[in-house]
Amino acid sequence: MTAAAPPSPALAGRAPADARARYRAGLAVPSSGEAPGYTQANLVVLPREWAFDMLLFGQRNPQPVPLLDVTDPGSPRTVLAPDADLRTDLPRYRVWRDGELAGEPTDVRDLWTDDLVAFLIGCSFSFETALLEAGVPVRNIEQGRNVSMYRTNRACRPAGRLSGPLVVSMRPVPAGLVATAVQVTARMPQVHGAPVHVGAPSALGIVDLDRPDFGDPVQAAEGDVPVFWACGVTPQAALMDSRPPFAITHAPGHMFVTDVPDAVYRQL
Amino acid sequence: MTAAAPPSPALAGRAPADARARYRAGLAVPSSGEAPGYTQANLVVLPREWAFDMLLFGQRNPQPVPLLDVTDPGSPRTVLAPDADLRTDLPRYRVWRDGELAGEPTDVRDLWTDDLVAFLIGCSFSFETALLEAGVPVRNIEQGRNVSMYRTNRACRPAGRLSGPLVVSMRPVPAGLVATAVQVTARMPQVHGAPVHVGAPSALGIVDLDRPDFGDPVQAAEGDVPVFWACGVTPQAALMDSRPPFAITHAPGHMFVTDVPDAVYRQL
Repeated sequence: MTAAAPPSPALAGRAPADARARYRAGLAVPSSGEAPGYTQANLVVLPREWAFDMLLFGQRNPQPVPLLDVTDPGSPRTVLAPDADLRTDLPRYRVWRDGELAGEPTDVRDLWTDDLVAFLIGCSFSFETALLEAGVPVRNIEQGRNVSMYRTNRACRPAGRLSGPLVVSMRPVPAGLVATAVQVTARMPQVHGAPVHVGAPSALGIVDLDRPDFGDPVQAAEGDVPVFWACGVTPQAALMDSRPPFAITHAPGHMFVTDVPDAVYRQL
Repeated sequence: MTAAAPPSPALAGRAPADARARYRAGLAVPSSGEAPGYTQANLVVLPREWAFDMLLFGQRNPQPVPLLDVTDPGSPRTVLAPDADLRTDLPRYRVWRDGELAGEPTDVRDLWTDDLVAFLIGCSFSFETALLEAGVPVRNIEQGRNVSMYRTNRACRPAGRLSGPLVVSMRPVPAGLVATAVQVTARMPQVHGAPVHVGAPSALGIVDLDRPDFGDPVQAAEGDVPVFWACGVTPQAALMDSRPPFAITHAPGHMFVTDVPDAVYRQL
């Protein structure tokens, strides 16, 4: 159906498939800037027995956890890229056991079972393109760094055994363009939507913007205001807090490149 | 978070609670027109063992099945109306056994178990108010009838054991106001969003507009075009086709009146 509809294969250019082929062959680099104009997604994979809780966690926390697709148990296929194999086509994975990081392989075929359900979750890379098109500078791109991300003092709404803090990404935005940034991203609710907070990092429990919990520090320019968006690392933080026996995610910045043009997730 | 956030109790006037109190006391009438300006919701209740399939069915079919809230197993409480009891506060229920209608009680306390999960699903009553405010006539309201609903030849994307056809509601719209109707409803994706189809009912497999599968026939005025929206009866059609051992739903037109103002579900 409209916003969440899978793309027509005819819409997909070669760029996403080419990127996935390189990752499948072993290239293990961050996916930022790959296949520009195509949506990239966060990955969370859990045993079927935990999948209801994760699906409900997404339903209850749609800003940090916008679910773009959920696979059938055991299937490594997604409507977001019908030719892709979720076990091989990301540049790097993280494997979690009891909430602890247990490895960062580039292929998870040997770990895959008929019991696993994969969740593809919207990523703010999609709205960065929209911000640039609207004339809003994106400092982390200018500085060639990963975006800054922070655990906040706000709890997500729990779902069964899953709970954890809201994680936000922060981008410094010139004060005169904050309203534009809100409007542009509000039109893209499936890739985190409007900011959750503008200015006043201490109100989110963030002590020092220069010391992010994930990603890199990003320098603000004179007159920039820190703007905070819900972040797709939120479900990883919930896995770390809630400790399911087994999980696979993408490695930070090493996303799944889909065949879906970013424009599909832009609303009126 | 923004669009799906529960309302502040301070926002809720007395009208929704008063309506629910009358239904709880036994009044069994359609809820159309009750507590104007407040969101009404479709109800589907299933055993925990089927809840993952239903949650996934909603994720995969967000236009017909926009999930506004999903309860914890056994709980009759929802964030959409914190004081309400889902077992008593709807005007009338339907009970389903193996996909067959087994009763239409006004109270389901004796059927409730710790195993049940309730799904609250957006309803097009919310966007009818928005259409009227935009100057688009709503013929079913003018004629004092239930909206016309039809099973279509389009399949929903299945989820586990749940599958079924897309069900649509139809409203005749003056040709010069079709674009307005699209724009107004597109801003409300959590209450079915933009139309799925405009004109040409035969392309949806609808043979005779005067013989709806659910609801009442509604007369079109000269120059009206039939406009079709995804409909919240879709999950009931899936229950009829997929035959879970037990389910409870609202009776058609006898919705759950929430404390959430319709405006919460309007986007930019």
